[in-house]
Amino acid sequence: MPTVQVTRRESFNAAHRLHNPKKSDEWNRATFGKCNSPNYHGHNYVLEVTVEGTPDPDTGYVIDLAYLKQLMHEHVIDRVDHRNLNTDVTFLQGILPSTENFAVAIWQELAPRIEGGRLVKVRLQETEKNSVEYYGA
Amino acid sequence: MPTVQVTRRESFNAAHRLHNPKKSDEWNRATFGKCNSPNYHGHNYVLEVTVEGTPDPDTGYVIDLAYLKQLMHEHVIDRVDHRNLNTDVTFLQGILPSTENFAVAIWQELAPRIEGGRLVKVRLQETEKNSVEYYGA
Amino acid sequence: MPTVQVTRRESFNAAHRLHNPKKSDEWNRATFGKCNSPNYHGHNYVLEVTVEGTPDPDTGYVIDLAYLKQLMHEHVIDRVDHRNLNTDVTFLQGILPSTENFAVAIWQELAPRIEGGRLVKVRLQETEKNSVEYYGA
Amino acid sequence: MPTVQVTRRESFNAAHRLHNPKKSDEWNRATFGKCNSPNYHGHNYVLEVTVEGTPDPDTGYVIDLAYLKQLMHEHVIDRVDHRNLNTDVTFLQGILPSTENFAVAIWQELAPRIEGGRLVKVRLQETEKNSVEYYGA
Amino acid sequence: MPTVQVTRRESFNAAHRLHNPKKSDEWNRATFGKCNSPNYHGHNYVLEVTVEGTPDPDTGYVIDLAYLKQLMHEHVIDRVDHRNLNTDVTFLQGILPSTENFAVAIWQELAPRIEGGRLVKVRLQETEKNSVEYYGA
Amino acid sequence: MPTVQVTRRESFNAAHRLHNPKKSDEWNRATFGKCNSPNYHGHNYVLEVTVEGTPDPDTGYVIDLAYLKQLMHEHVIDRVDHRNLNTDVTFLQGILPSTENFAVAIWQELAPRIEGGRLVKVRLQETEKNSVEYYGA
Repeated sequence: MPTVQVTRRESFNAAHRLHNPKKSDEWNRATFGKCNSPNYHGHNYVLEVTVEGTPDPDTGYVIDLAYLKQLMHEHVIDRVDHRNLNTDVTFLQGILPSTENFAVAIWQELAPRIEGGRLVKVRLQETEKNSVEYYGA
Repeated sequence: MPTVQVTRRESFNAAHRLHNPKKSDEWNRATFGKCNSPNYHGHNYVLEVTVEGTPDPDTGYVIDLAYLKQLMHEHVIDRVDHRNLNTDVTFLQGILPSTENFAVAIWQELAPRIEGGRLVKVRLQETEKNSVEYYGA
Repeated sequence: MPTVQVTRRESFNAAHRLHNPKKSDEWNRATFGKCNSPNYHGHNYVLEVTVEGTPDPDTGYVIDLAYLKQLMHEHVIDRVDHRNLNTDVTFLQGILPSTENFAVAIWQELAPRIEGGRLVKVRLQETEKNSVEYYGA
Repeated sequence: MPTVQVTRRESFNAAHRLHNPKKSDEWNRATFGKCNSPNYHGHNYVLEVTVEGTPDPDTGYVIDLAYLKQLMHEHVIDRVDHRNLNTDVTFLQGILPSTENFAVAIWQELAPRIEGGRLVKVRLQETEKNSVEYYGA
Repeated sequence: MPTVQVTRRESFNAAHRLHNPKKSDEWNRATFGKCNSPNYHGHNYVLEVTVEGTPDPDTGYVIDLAYLKQLMHEHVIDRVDHRNLNTDVTFLQGILPSTENFAVAIWQELAPRIEGGRLVKVRLQETEKNSVEYYGA
Repeated sequence: MPTVQVTRRESFNAAHRLHNPKKSDEWNRATFGKCNSPNYHGHNYVLEVTVEGTPDPDTGYVIDLAYLKQLMHEHVIDRVDHRNLNTDVTFLQGILPSTENFAVAIWQELAPRIEGGRLVKVRLQETEKNSVEYYGA
């Protein structure tokens, strides 16, 4: 029985700012540069979620991608799209919204909800040039 | 002598919010939906600027694209990148930062500074699905 | 008052076959080659619709792109997505579904329904290499 | 001696329909939704094939990508391009043409024909949003 | 009878160098910067050719894109692909291979060969950020 | 503590030619075909560098991507951009500039300079259709 990985790609828009409130403003400006700009900036994030499993003999699906899309929307996208990652998102409270931390937080929201297959990768693209991948470990 | 159009593509990241301060909060929510989200959201904007002219016989250039890039950075990108379009940008003060209005404002910043060729198009892409084009009239 | 063009990009999937029933099978095979393959092939079509107008002073919008998206779905995409263009689509009945003819037919469905701005371009991409544009004349 | 992976990307167009003939029409409609549409729909598939090996000291190649392209065309693309995956493709007979099953079937066609390097990944993209990867196990 | 534009996209790879032999080396270095690098550099050029006309009632085609592809290959791509634009291409002899001049030269090769429709645009992309369009006048 | 991979994408333009000077011209033409064209051809290369590590608790960064970008420019891109890979690049001297060999050479330039995280992948794309990945072993 083959093991196959299936990936769903969705996108959303959000504002954020890199700022560590435990540190001085000076440290934040020196560390984060323009990403520390006080009134926020934003991105069109691209989120790719990969689930691994054996195709079901009746459907040929590892997981119904319409269902995976629904999970991604319900647990992640509807909570972050057109929002401010520093102030509006409960699952990011107390977390500095770097792409790295954001991807790990998305994994934690999605992993327990996926049935049938198992989550193996979250890829989060912040810009055409910057992206991160998290494999859950 | 042929007339050729040359285009330079640059990108930048910014936060914004669609909100008309002359209208009620209720009107704004009804009109702009999630684009009115109070704490801003953001985009990776793609800006394409097109200049038309006759290639110079000595250089083969309508305009040196390194110079056009520099103009775009000095007069637009350095002023909007990693900023909040509602609060941080002098050339957008008093302007509702829809993609349409933003493109027209960019034209007005760039048109008087371009020499040699003439500005014929500003294309501004807000997301993979939404973009505007302004031809200066 | 500036005139701005706004574009919405959507995509859909459909099967089709190029076959002119008024001509012989031999003519069809010679003319259309593999595009005449009898049991259909298909594409991920990309549809870009461009509307021109003056931004509304209150909203900054030429047309609300959420509304344009809804028009595109109601009058085009919901009727062609995951369908067979030769057999399933009422607005293509009797029309050979070349990309050219399909784009003209889409224009005719959309043009009378767009209010506020006016439709100025339908771009339909059949593959990464093949696309058509129709300007309504 | 370094081990390097080389990837060739090709594309093709095909029609298909998700329908399990062992199940009722009602089950098929409920399970596959619009992907069960009776007269087929279609996609521009993107196929990426990855081969791993040690670069040859004389050529610097793991595998000549012109040769890999030829293998992909002879054994896969020429048999599926502009075809119907449910009815026209011998190596898919009796197989429900989900992207998962299709990718596994492509692996089985290609793996025994690749010499020099070894096949390590087949990636098959059905739409901009849906793709699968198969690693051969 | 509608007028439709159809576009074919092809790509090729070539080396070139911006250097005006009528000028001093110093002038060339100052004018062209790294594009004047003596041993050449190169690009994956993308060529888009647009032909306008009325769809044929029997075929639905403005021009058979397989035929347009063949024209593009015979008259342009086969002569420039994997070549040096400064030394290897007869239709560029004596022409400084800026993207502007190259696009105009491509127009001159193609325009007299296209039958049925008429050539309305040559778009030549040198990099993801730099492109030119020539409309034949 | 999660382990996350971060990737930076940069691009550059270069000329090259596949030619093994230890072999006859005939062997080179037969082996490399048009890639052996004597006066060079060229590409817009895309370089993606992936670094793995634990996000820093204070910054949320595995590695500051602005710093990774700087390393990529200083040690790779500034030495190959707008150059000839066969003649101009010290770290490629004596190396046949296939994409495979080039990716391995880039790894060797970058791996010892990356601090904090560790280099886990170099992906080098030569064209839209051809790419290689090297994982350092």
